[in-house]
Order: sequence, then C-alpha cells, then structure tokens
Amino acid sequence: MNSIPTLKDIQEAVRRIAPYAHITPILTNSYFNELTNAQLYFKCENFQKTGAFKFRGACNAIMSLTDKEAKRGVATHSSGNHAAALSLAANIRNITAHIVIPSNAPAIKIKAVQSYGGKIRFCEPSLKARESTLSQLLEETGAIPIHPYNDPKVIAGQATAALELLANVPNLDMIITPVGGGGLLSGSAIIVKGKYPHTKVIGVEPEGADDAFQSFSSGRLIPCTNPNTIADGLLASLGELTFSIITKYVDDIITVSDQSIIHAMRVVWERMKIIIEPSSAVVVAALLEQKIDVYNQRIGIILTGGNVDLESLLW
Amino acid sequence: MNSIPTLKDIQEAVRRIAPYAHITPILTNSYFNELTNAQLYFKCENFQKTGAFKFRGACNAIMSLTDKEAKRGVATHSSGNHAAALSLAANIRNITAHIVIPSNAPAIKIKAVQSYGGKIRFCEPSLKARESTLSQLLEETGAIPIHPYNDPKVIAGQATAALELLANVPNLDMIITPVGGGGLLSGSAIIVKGKYPHTKVIGVEPEGADDAFQSFSSGRLIPCTNPNTIADGLLASLGELTFSIITKYVDDIITVSDQSIIHAMRVVWERMKIIIEPSSAVVVAALLEQKIDVYNQRIGIILTGGNVDLESLLW
Repeated sequence: MNSIPTLKDIQEAVRRIAPYAHITPILTNSYFNELTNAQLYFKCENFQKTGAFKFRGACNAIMSLTDKEAKRGVATHSSGNHAAALSLAANIRNITAHIVIPSNAPAIKIKAVQSYGGKIRFCEPSLKARESTLSQLLEETGAIPIHPYNDPKVIAGQATAALELLANVPNLDMIITPVGGGGLLSGSAIIVKGKYPHTKVIGVEPEGADDAFQSFSSGRLIPCTNPNTIADGLLASLGELTFSIITKYVDDIITVSDQSIIHAMRVVWERMKIIIEPSSAVVVAALLEQKIDVYNQRIGIILTGGNVDLESLLW
Repeated sequence: MNSIPTLKDIQEAVRRIAPYAHITPILTNSYFNELTNAQLYFKCENFQKTGAFKFRGACNAIMSLTDKEAKRGVATHSSGNHAAALSLAANIRNITAHIVIPSNAPAIKIKAVQSYGGKIRFCEPSLKARESTLSQLLEETGAIPIHPYNDPKVIAGQATAALELLANVPNLDMIITPVGGGGLLSGSAIIVKGKYPHTKVIGVEPEGADDAFQSFSSGRLIPCTNPNTIADGLLASLGELTFSIITKYVDDIITVSDQSIIHAMRVVWERMKIIIEPSSAVVVAALLEQKIDVYNQRIGIILTGGNVDLESLLW
C-alpha cells in the first residue's frame, strides 16, 4: 500500500482535487531578485484553501476513498494545517473527520479545525498520548486514518503544487521547499525527477528540528527528538516512505536558524505584502543567508502556508 | 490642461506603463463571498510596484513628459505612496524626483522614498509649509510638479487598475474603491461609464476625512479640515478635477468608522493572507458593515496598497 506514488498517481491527483483546490498564483518580486541575483518564482500556497498546501494532500486522500470507505469517516492526530485540511476535505465529501489534538494546542488551530467541521478529541500533549488516543478512536469509530505525510495519496496531492509551478514557469533550475515530515518535498521530487530531470530539488529545515538533514546526510532514518523551533509546521520527523523518496531524488537539505526564519518572514511580509508562516519562511531564510548557490538561476519556491496568530508579532 | 481624461488617454496610459507596472493578480475568497452573499473580486494593487496603485499614475505622468521636460526633474509634496511612486518612476526614467516631506512623517515612509532615489526636502508639518516649500523648490530647480491626483495623466494612470479588473472579470455589477483625493475613484468611474455603463461605481471614505462624501452630497467642493483617521492615505481633499468627474460619474459615496477599518484590515490579513493598509480596508469595512447592497452581485474591489509599518499591529 505504501509504495512511491508515480507520475500517473500525481496526474490523477490533479484531476481529483481540481474541483476543490485553488490553482494558486505565482508571484515574483524584484527586491528579492536583486538581493539574491536570481529569478525567484514564489508559488503561493498560503492562498490555498485552509491557508496551506496541506489541503491538496488531504483532499486527494479523501476523494480517493470508495463510498464504502468514506462512510466510515477519517481520522488523524495533528494540531496543525493537516488537521484543518482534513476537516475541510471531509466536510466537502460530507463525512466525519476525527481529529486528535493535544490539549495545549493553540486556540487558533482548534478554532480552524472546528470552523471546517472537524470533530475534536483532546489528548495529553505527548506523541505517545496522541498515538494511543488515535488508536482508541480508530477502534471505536472504524474511521480510516489519513497520515499527514507518510501516505502515497497525500504525497501525490502535495506534488500537485510543484507540478503547477513547473508547468507555468519554464526552465526552472531549482525548486526549493520546506521539509518537516517530507510530504511536500518528496512529492515535488517525484515530479521533478520524472518530468524535469535537469531541475534540482532542495529541502530546507529549521536547525531545531533537523532530522531530515541528519537522515539525509547519514543515509538512515533518524527521528527527531525534542524538536524546538518557531516553525511549528516542521516539527515532524520523516516517515519511511518520505525518507525513501527523499534519499532517492532530493539533491540537498539545508538548515536555517530560528532567528533567520523570523527575519525572512518579516521581509516577505514587508516586501511582498503577503502573510506567510514561519514554516514557509525557512526557504527564504536559506536564500537570504546565501546558503544555496542560486546565482543567475531560475528558482521555484513553494510558500507553504500563511496560518499565523495575528494577535501579536514574532519580532 | 486639466481636462477630464478620455478613454483614449487611459488606453495610452496602459501602453505607457506596461513595461514598468505589474498587472496585479485578482483574488477571490470564499469566506468573504459567503459573508457578503456576493461574488467578490479583489484587485491586488498592494502587489503593485512600490506597494500601491499610485505607481500607475506617477509612472504615466513621468513617461508622458517630453525629454526636454523630463530633464527638469519632477516634484511633489507628499509623505505617502505618491511620493514613493514618483521617486521610483523618476528613477526608472533616470531623472530627479524632489519630494517635500513634513518633518513628522513616519520613518518608514521617508525610508521608502530614499530607497527609490527620491530627493527629500523637509518642511514644517502644515499644508501651508508644504505648499510654500514646494513653490520655492519649483522656483529653484525648475522641476515639473506632479500633483498626486488632480492631474489628468495621474488619473488616467490610476484608471488602468480598474480597466484591468473589468477586462478580466466579465459582468461586474459594481466596482468599489477607496476615495481620498479621488484620483483612483474618478479614473475608475471614467472607465466604467465609458465602457461598462451597467456597472455601478461606489467610493468609500473614512468618517474622519469625509470631504468627498460631503462634497458629493452637497454638490459643491468642500475641503477637508482637520482630517483624523487611521487611513493615512485618505487624508487629502478632492481636487477640482476629481470632484467634477466624481459628481458626473460616481453612483454613491459611503463612509466607515476607523474601528470598522481596523477590523476589516485584520480579517483580510487573517483570511486572505495578504497585507493591506488601512486605506485599502475601507472598502472591506463598508461590505462587512453591510453599508452597500451587494446581494447576489458580482463586485470588483480595488485593494489600493499594502504599506504599513510592521513594527507593531494596529489591533
């Protein structure tokens, strides 16, 4: 079941999510071009439904279920963008999404899940409690678990963002995405290596949650222990499936500091007039810190989401 | 010289600014559609060069100068988006923009003018001091004054934003813009009444600077005395030219409170993931307060700019 999605799977995902997901705009910005000596193309998934690319994967997974499966409902443990995305996609299909959320999750995330109709079950704030609560819930309800990234349908859905970017901007030399659990990065890598083999694929990760970097460098899956970063969407560790794809297809993984993430986030807000969350800003941080050689190249960047608490500022 | 721009003038402006200005994206948002029971189309001039639609007018004015005129340089008094726009357009044409700025202008606005190469002359913070400093400067330098709105080339330039919106979204029932000095509103009205006569044109103004509302209601030009609003781009009073166009072509002018402007601004940031300034938010405020009947209609909205100080939040 957990096999690497093919280009055909991704093409099917494109058709499956088309009625529900936005084809998000691609922005350019002369300030950033001058600063980096490159041509940057920003794919704005912060404008995607639910404010993040995660809707693509969740939607593809839910719309792939048979009617019989769908009736059972779906479930996941997450307090972040996958939870909101799964809730909305389930809502559209008129089925129940059960979401296990740690009791210390930010009110704004809980509100988002509720607003999309997700059914919340709270648990203690530990991975163990999350997993056991989810197991219990699956047993009680018979719901189908949809993993946030270690799932071929989810990966195929996330890949559609890179596909839109590559199809609309010819001759990209490189595509750069954040990496948390690796769903977006591995989906992007499949598209690139299958259809645009001359394009490089780079992942960027916060220093405080650098398991993908560690795993990529060492060639073995090293889970993240005690992640600590402002980029709350990138706390997860690679899964077996995403790790195997990333090892095979990704060119490099770079890390950036939280300080540099916050700075990059602010410069994007100021210069591009768009709201991105810290997890999106990692890519821009890597460019501003000149951690990737982009001189004179055409660079595709996926801005993954814009869900931040606007009650206060991070700087 | 100060005659009402024609459709032909506006078409010429389109060609004149095309090499320099962005064709900005038009966004939609299901949350706002549901909330207003309407189909809203947001023309994102916050993504325009210099972060505001003002670049269109300034660019058209400067690119319309003969080489002989251009050599003299241009000048204006403004601490806002027109100053930055004029500075960049002058920079592109490789001529000098002299900007008279009141000594109490926010540091961020001064920085923007400087970053685009504008030559600043400070003056006391009063309209009288601004005008006398500008007169003196014009005498000394021989520069050509470019008024922020009471100028046919500027109005024709601003009109191109509405033209792009109307050309890309068929059958708009209404177009709504903020109104300060009236350059954008009058330019939009010329386009609408000339090419799309079944479309209504509405202006929205802050209560604390409601000269356009007063003038429109009474039929005579009433300047604004002591304007007081958070919408710092809408402090100016209508000019004779913009007043005559607005009287002739605009269907209505609505006012909104500062409180409602700040609320609307926050909801746009949260839901649309874009940064707009208070002067842009007036239109959204009018919709959220149900001050305009938009039921079941297709509504075009010009989001005029995104230049806000991100050091702190207004809420």
